[in-house]
Parts: sequence; structure tokens; C-alpha cells
Amino acid sequence: MRIQKLTEETKQNLLQDLLKRSPDSYGEYEERVAAILKQVKEKGDEALFAYTEQFDHAHLTKETVRVSEEEIAEAYEKTDEKLIGVIRKALENIRSYHEKQKQYSWFDSKPDGTLLGQKVTPLKRVGVYVPGGKAVYPSSVLMNVIPARIAGVDEIIMVTPPGRDGKVSPHTLVAAKEAGVDAIYKVGGAQAIAALAYGTESIPKTDKIVGPGNIYVALAKKAVYGYVSIDSVAGPSEILVIADETANPRYVAADLLSQAEHDELASAILVTTSAELAEKVSDEVDGFLKELSRAEIIQKSLDNYGYILVAQTMEEAIETANEIASEHLEILTKNPFDVMTKIRNAGAIFLGEYASEPLGDYFAGPNHILPTNGTAKFFSPLSVDDFIKKSSIISYSRDALEKIHEDIEYFAQAEQLTAHANSIKVRFEKEGE
Amino acid sequence: MRIQKLTEETKQNLLQDLLKRSPDSYGEYEERVAAILKQVKEKGDEALFAYTEQFDHAHLTKETVRVSEEEIAEAYEKTDEKLIGVIRKALENIRSYHEKQKQYSWFDSKPDGTLLGQKVTPLKRVGVYVPGGKAVYPSSVLMNVIPARIAGVDEIIMVTPPGRDGKVSPHTLVAAKEAGVDAIYKVGGAQAIAALAYGTESIPKTDKIVGPGNIYVALAKKAVYGYVSIDSVAGPSEILVIADETANPRYVAADLLSQAEHDELASAILVTTSAELAEKVSDEVDGFLKELSRAEIIQKSLDNYGYILVAQTMEEAIETANEIASEHLEILTKNPFDVMTKIRNAGAIFLGEYASEPLGDYFAGPNHILPTNGTAKFFSPLSVDDFIKKSSIISYSRDALEKIHEDIEYFAQAEQLTAHANSIKVRFEKEGE
Repeated sequence: MRIQKLTEETKQNLLQDLLKRSPDSYGEYEERVAAILKQVKEKGDEALFAYTEQFDHAHLTKETVRVSEEEIAEAYEKTDEKLIGVIRKALENIRSYHEKQKQYSWFDSKPDGTLLGQKVTPLKRVGVYVPGGKAVYPSSVLMNVIPARIAGVDEIIMVTPPGRDGKVSPHTLVAAKEAGVDAIYKVGGAQAIAALAYGTESIPKTDKIVGPGNIYVALAKKAVYGYVSIDSVAGPSEILVIADETANPRYVAADLLSQAEHDELASAILVTTSAELAEKVSDEVDGFLKELSRAEIIQKSLDNYGYILVAQTMEEAIETANEIASEHLEILTKNPFDVMTKIRNAGAIFLGEYASEPLGDYFAGPNHILPTNGTAKFFSPLSVDDFIKKSSIISYSRDALEKIHEDIEYFAQAEQLTAHANSIKVRFEKEGE
Repeated sequence: MRIQKLTEETKQNLLQDLLKRSPDSYGEYEERVAAILKQVKEKGDEALFAYTEQFDHAHLTKETVRVSEEEIAEAYEKTDEKLIGVIRKALENIRSYHEKQKQYSWFDSKPDGTLLGQKVTPLKRVGVYVPGGKAVYPSSVLMNVIPARIAGVDEIIMVTPPGRDGKVSPHTLVAAKEAGVDAIYKVGGAQAIAALAYGTESIPKTDKIVGPGNIYVALAKKAVYGYVSIDSVAGPSEILVIADETANPRYVAADLLSQAEHDELASAILVTTSAELAEKVSDEVDGFLKELSRAEIIQKSLDNYGYILVAQTMEEAIETANEIASEHLEILTKNPFDVMTKIRNAGAIFLGEYASEPLGDYFAGPNHILPTNGTAKFFSPLSVDDFIKKSSIISYSRDALEKIHEDIEYFAQAEQLTAHANSIKVRFEKEGE
């Protein structure tokens, strides 16, 4: 891996490089996505099935688009017992963590008859997108579905593209069943997002669409945002490791590689105060690379977006981590909690040498759907919050309103909204006025 | 006002009507907005000032674009003491309510050495858009800025379009100063959104942009979403009143009118179980209309989007309210809290005959920036939540990881992510392996 001295210049170059991974304008993609959305909105199932034939080469009908109970039973038969057991253990951990995110309605009342509050209501129906194709990630199914279930969503609809045989991966189906999905439809791409946003004869309209997907899926989600809600738009994966001279170079190297294997746009960055560690990690990376099955992807990812930066001070390293705002941040230093207090921007923070990133991907409990590409500056991990919404509650007594009614009328008049003022005034008019 | 029997047909027609207020595609607007964003991104201040000259007919320079301390002092001189006093009282109430929305970092640890948590961090810098022109709403300044301040945002930047004289409304400036804005810039429209998203020589880049605006502002916000965060895209205002025979028709009529005066796209709907109340409210509306200064706007708004619906049962009325998912919902019934428990979708819920909607606009404390046009099904009022973000925290001991390391490796292998498995395995390799 390339080793550079951390300077303002190397940092700025790196930040520019990372941003290249999500171009500003997607030109022709946007037009194609807009056309797909329009067709599905207008023609429903007819367009949905035609696109599935065109893009996934699978033939669907109103009878086969929904995964049947038989297909789910078949998926269980095809999945080994041990994996089912592991999925169930992971599910328990994920559930336990997300339970702690639950928010409750509250109110505050005063003896003068005022009551103000905030009512928490789960969304009614949500759609979960699960990518198909070569990469099958049952862990992502768990991470998307469990927070929705805990939030109290009535109905969770999953969509995922079928293979040419019109089937969905058994691992995906098992994970969906275990997590408690209510219905699974074999559609993918922008056409699936359109179906979840507008509804078709077969697929009901949802209130929010979550889950990662390819560029068509991402653009379709952005296009329907506002008409329905969406989670944040997913980008390529990334890890940043902050390490000092106490870190084990073998662990650091293995963790960098675990992100780099995702795809060629993934980014793996080490920022260290130790030039010696930098060299050792680089050597370990080379050593591991020979043994790993996805070496080709990893090599490309490291060439493009892999960096080892040597910082003068820990403060400099922390500042860089905050500017990059990485999806995953590992802290392998003498006192990782001390460093953590200074971290402002990161999707998930892994502390110490036994909290390696894949622990969070699969098992620990926190969500692995995290803000990418610098968006940890303003976005959060997927959570129970994503599946609830709030309403303000206001109740006033006549006495309480009377004390302030002239103030409100004055404010409304100052904004030249006389009907607003009137709506207060009318409550205190005297007989015969 | 038109009175209709509530049937499936009248309800569906009404829902269709309301949706017409936000067209699906904005065609040429989108292209013009994209061009403005591109210019400001590339040319910074130069483009920003040129657009301000073109659209606002105001000449700006690097020296005059930011509102000066002298201009703020001048604004205080031009604002009457009484209004400043009312603004301060409102501010206190708004602050007190939003303080209760604060969320805290938490963690949960077990004696085996596992620690999981969620860290809450305020956004660093946010931009608040305040519309200019004829309508000046200091109350909206308070509602946008106070939650950001309470969340702990470092720097709050406000933008608002100037008049031809290059000045900003004094009431807006006073409200901004009282609420604690750090810097105010005299720019508006899509060009102001571009400046907040990308930064220019004069205006710093922000992490999130909030606040309502015209169609250019709304489309610009949607276009930069993902690069920065935004609050929900604002639409036309609306009220829905659920009332039974116990409601005072004069109050109901005044409250409907208070929303209708906002603009011609505003919607005011009464759903009542009492045919007698329906008639009386309609008469009262006619009576008030003669006295109100914005009668012309109100008349158009009522003609297009005003309805009185007579329901057979309270359940039917509630179901209709949930389907419409109104920005403001008033419940004027014998037992409004009982009805409230059945309400699923509404931005703010006003209970009883003294909680009239303008009380919430100005004074009670809850935010008046609310989800519109059916989006209360999945969006929430603006709140402290909008100005924080979360990071997951994961720390594990060697013992804790050892107990589960084989499960994680198995899961990673099942997803064919061998470098993920390796990152766990390496921590438990024996000497000499």
C-alpha cells in the first residue's frame, strides 16, 4: 500500500479522490431511471414485469411475483442448519441493541391547563430493497428489517431481483423469514423502487423505502424522495483506522483488507502516528493479499482509494478522521476511549484491537447500514428512528390562552396575517360584539 | 364553503385534488435550478452576486453580502419594543419545548468486556433559509434556529433574499439576532442554496440546509440532498379540523380561515359528524370573509382546496384524517384526547377549543415547520433531531470476541467475504500458524 506523509496537500488530494467515487451528475442514468419510474407509475404490473423480463431475464406473472410459502420452505431446506443457527444468534444481538433505540411519546403539563407533547407513531408500511446478483448478504436483510420491526411498523415488504430462473437466493429468504418480513416480491432495480413508491396491482405502495442498491436503485430512490421517504443514499464502503505504535500491524492490515474486498470503489485508509507501523502494515497487506480469494478486487481498490498516512501527532490524525468522516472508524491506540471523545464524524466507531469491523457487520448488534462518503457529517446509521415519525401535541385551557392571547394577536398582525389573529380573538370576544 | 357527504368517492377526489398542489415533474424549473447550482459551484461569489443582481435587483459585493452589526442595530431601532417583547416570550416557550427533545449518548456494557453504545453529536454548521419578499415571518426564523441552537450546532448561517435596496427586513434580523444566528447573508433563491451546499469565497459550506422557500429553493434543496442534508421539502400549508356537534362553529370557521389565508394553494378541511355544524361553519366562514384583509387569497384557496365533509361516524372522520395526513389537525370534540389516540398521521395535533392553530404558529412552543401534503405519514416536525447525528460505538474484549469468533467467520464465509473472515481469524491464530 502507498505510504504518504500526512500534510494538508496529501489530505486534500485524498478528499478529492474519495469524492470522485460519487459523480455529481449521472446524466443518461437519470433519464433512464425517470422513464422507468413513469412507466411503472402509469402501467403498474405490466411495466414492472416487462422490465424484469428485460433486465433480469426472468418471466413473472401476478401469480409468481410474490415469493410463496413453498419457496420459503424450500429455501430452508437448501440452507445448512449451522448458518441458520448463526443467523438466529446475530438476530438476537441486533434486536437487543435496537431495542435500546426505541423512543417514547412524552408530554409535559402545567396546572394552568397547558399540555404540550410529542407523539411517536411507527410508519405503517415500509419497503426494503435487497440487492441480488452475485453478492448475497443475508446480514443486510437482518439489518434493514429488525429496526423496522422493533419500531412497530405494521407491514414490511421486501423486494429483491430474481435470477433467470425466477428464483431468489435461499439465504436471503431465510434471513427475511427469520427477521419477520411480511411479503417478498421478486423484483429489483428502479422498477422495484417505482412499485414501492407508487404501488402496482401486485405490490402495495409503501411510506418509506430503505436498503442499498446499484446506481439505478440509488437514483430512483432519490427521485421518489418527498413522495415517500427514503433512508440515506448508499455509496461505496470505507474504513479508516487510527493507530499508534501500540497497534498490532497484522490486525490493522487484515481490517483494511476486509473493507477493500467489497468492491473496487471501496476505500481503506490507515492514519498512524508511527512510521514503523506504517511499514509493517504495508508488508502485512502484501502478505495477506496472496491468500485472499478476492485479491483482484482488493488490489484495484487499494490502488485507487487505499492510503497509509503518517501523521506527526494524534491530534492531526483525529482531525483528518473527522474531515474524512468515514463509514467505519477503528481506533487501535493505547487509550481508544480517549481518542473517541474527540471523534465528531464517523458512522460506526470500533474501539480497541478486538473490535474489528466485521464484528459489527455481522454480530455485535449495531446496524451495519451506515453513512458513506463523508455523509457521516450529517447522516446517522440506520436505526429505529428511521421507522417512526413524530406529531406535536398541543392542548390549552381557556385560562392559559387568555393570559397570552393579546401577544399572539400582536405577533400575527406584525406578520400581516389577520385571519390568524382573528382565530385567537374570536375566542375572547364579548357577547354582542 | 362547499359541503359534501363523506363517501369513498368524495374522499378519493379530495385526495387527488390535494396532490395536484405538488406536480410530479417541474420540467424547465429543474433545468434552470441545475444551471444555477452548477454556476455557483464553479464560480462562487461571482455567480452568486450576478444571480442576486438578476433576480433580486440588488447589487452585492464581498463587503456588503453579509449583514453588518450596524444593520442589525438599525433593525432594532426600526422594530417596536412591544414586538421585541413578544418575540422574546415566544422564544422562551419554543426553547423550553425543544429542550425536552434533546437526545443523549448512551452505552450498555456487560462484565464480559463488551460495550455497545450510540454517540450523539451535533452537526457542525447548518444553513437556514428564510424567504424574503412580501411575506416576512420572524416566527419562522425562531422555529428554524432554536432547535439547531439547542442541539449544540457550532455555527448557524442564515440566508435571506434582499430587497432592491440591498436590505433585509428588520423583523427578520431582530428574530435572527434574538435566536442566536451567527452570520446572515443577503442572498436567496437556488443560488443561496448552492452557496450553502458548496461554499463560496464569502459563504461557508454547511452540513445541512433547512427552511422553506419557493419552488426554486425547494428544487435546489432536493438537488443537493445527499451532498449535504436537508429538512423535508416544504409544500403548501393545510389544516384539517375534526369536530362533532359540541364544537363552536365560530371557532372552527376562524381556524379554517387562518390556514386558507396563507396562499392560494393552502387547504382547509372540516370533517364533522354533525350536518348542523357543517351548515353553521359555512355561514360563519362567509361572515368572517367580509372582514378579513386577505379575503381574495382565502376565497381562491377555499374554492380550490376547501371542503366541509359530513361523516356518518367519528371512526370514518378519523380514518379520513389519517389518509389526508394533514400538516395541522385540530380536534374539537367532546373528548379530544380519546380521538387523538386514534390519530396516526398529522404534523401537529391541537386538542380542544382553546388550542387554535395560530397558538402553535407563534407561541406554544412546538415547532411550526411541519410535514405537508400527506408527508406526515413519514416525516416529522422540525426538531432538535434534525441537528444531531449518531455514531455507533462498539468495544469488545478478547474473551468476548473469542466466544463468537467462529460464528462470525462462518457467516462471512457464507457471504463469500473471505477477507472479512480473515480479519476475525487473525486475532486467534496460534503462534507459528
